[in-house]
Amino acid sequence: MTTQGRFIVVEGLEGAGKTSAIRTIEQWLNEHQIKFISTREPGGTPLAEQIRMLVKQVQDEQVAPETELLLMYASRVQLVKTVIQPALQRGCWVLGDRHDLSSRAYQGGGRQLDETLITTIRQAVLGQLTPDLTLYLDIDPAIGLQRAQARGELDRIELEQLAFFQRTRAKYQQIAAAEPHIITIDASQSIEQVQRQILNALQQAYQHGSLRPDV
Amino acid sequence: MTTQGRFIVVEGLEGAGKTSAIRTIEQWLNEHQIKFISTREPGGTPLAEQIRMLVKQVQDEQVAPETELLLMYASRVQLVKTVIQPALQRGCWVLGDRHDLSSRAYQGGGRQLDETLITTIRQAVLGQLTPDLTLYLDIDPAIGLQRAQARGELDRIELEQLAFFQRTRAKYQQIAAAEPHIITIDASQSIEQVQRQILNALQQAYQHGSLRPDV
Repeated sequence: MTTQGRFIVVEGLEGAGKTSAIRTIEQWLNEHQIKFISTREPGGTPLAEQIRMLVKQVQDEQVAPETELLLMYASRVQLVKTVIQPALQRGCWVLGDRHDLSSRAYQGGGRQLDETLITTIRQAVLGQLTPDLTLYLDIDPAIGLQRAQARGELDRIELEQLAFFQRTRAKYQQIAAAEPHIITIDASQSIEQVQRQILNALQQAYQHGSLRPDV
Repeated sequence: MTTQGRFIVVEGLEGAGKTSAIRTIEQWLNEHQIKFISTREPGGTPLAEQIRMLVKQVQDEQVAPETELLLMYASRVQLVKTVIQPALQRGCWVLGDRHDLSSRAYQGGGRQLDETLITTIRQAVLGQLTPDLTLYLDIDPAIGLQRAQARGELDRIELEQLAFFQRTRAKYQQIAAAEPHIITIDASQSIEQVQRQILNALQQAYQHGSLRPDV
């Protein structure tokens, strides 16, 4: 019998350093000879990538917050049902660039959608799936957006006002404080410091916590 | 103060004759000098039309039934929030080529998705919005599909097996029997007979029922 794979997710605002965090985790997984796949959300399958484009491109019309929410969950459920769940079931680990927590923070915090609405939809379509470990890179949006802007053109969501990202960050922090599988990392530190904290969190969870091979 | 507009929906399987039913209703509305807009689902706004394309085109991957459901509701909520509700509020009537009942029949009946899942999502995103009158054109799918095939290439959903459409029809019939705002019309009759029944249903609802101007 194969052991179920583990699901690790990296979360945070634009410019928080998710990409380099993911590289650090990939290296750690390789060093431990753990088979894994990488995913990103929204997206991660051909159909989900098309949904990603829809949701990120600037539209001629006002996009209702509920539409954005349902598109995010349409992309997510396609990825979960066709990629993430089958991988975990065959013992493969999954490393996610964003997952469900993004919708709770951006659509719940940023767009101020009703939390019950989001919870209802998540539970209805995702059931009990929860990451084994989520690394939340916490950054002041003023700094994060500057970094994101330096990278090039911003998409529809990245074009929001600072207050939107401040609400998103507050929601991230609130959920991270309440849910034990989420580790908050201060992303304003140097790259080396952030890297060290990520590796500590992984090692800790691998030896004593939710990533333990025989849990 | 403006009276709220009325919301009329035409429903039924492919090839049931929805297009000519809609033409009949449009003529009736014009004769009664009622201001109205026409919508179609999935679709009806530029973004919702893009979602329609995603959901209808043949994909290289298996589309999870839950993904299809969420895309349908993403399209629907965008149309409802940005077109249907504003129109009804300013006293304009809305004539819909498909609406919520389609998801209940196709994704609930055809795809056999759990009814609680669908109900949960509908109520979460649509709230209390219900059509004032739904005309359901009932047709044997063997006949309907033949008509649809004669019109040209079939989309991803139209390519389903007959059993899929039989389950969809059974769900249409079951819901229509239970909900008083839905009038079932036998679409296997001649065009003239169908037309007469549609006009009767409209007239009846206009004089004594849910379309009455002062209700």
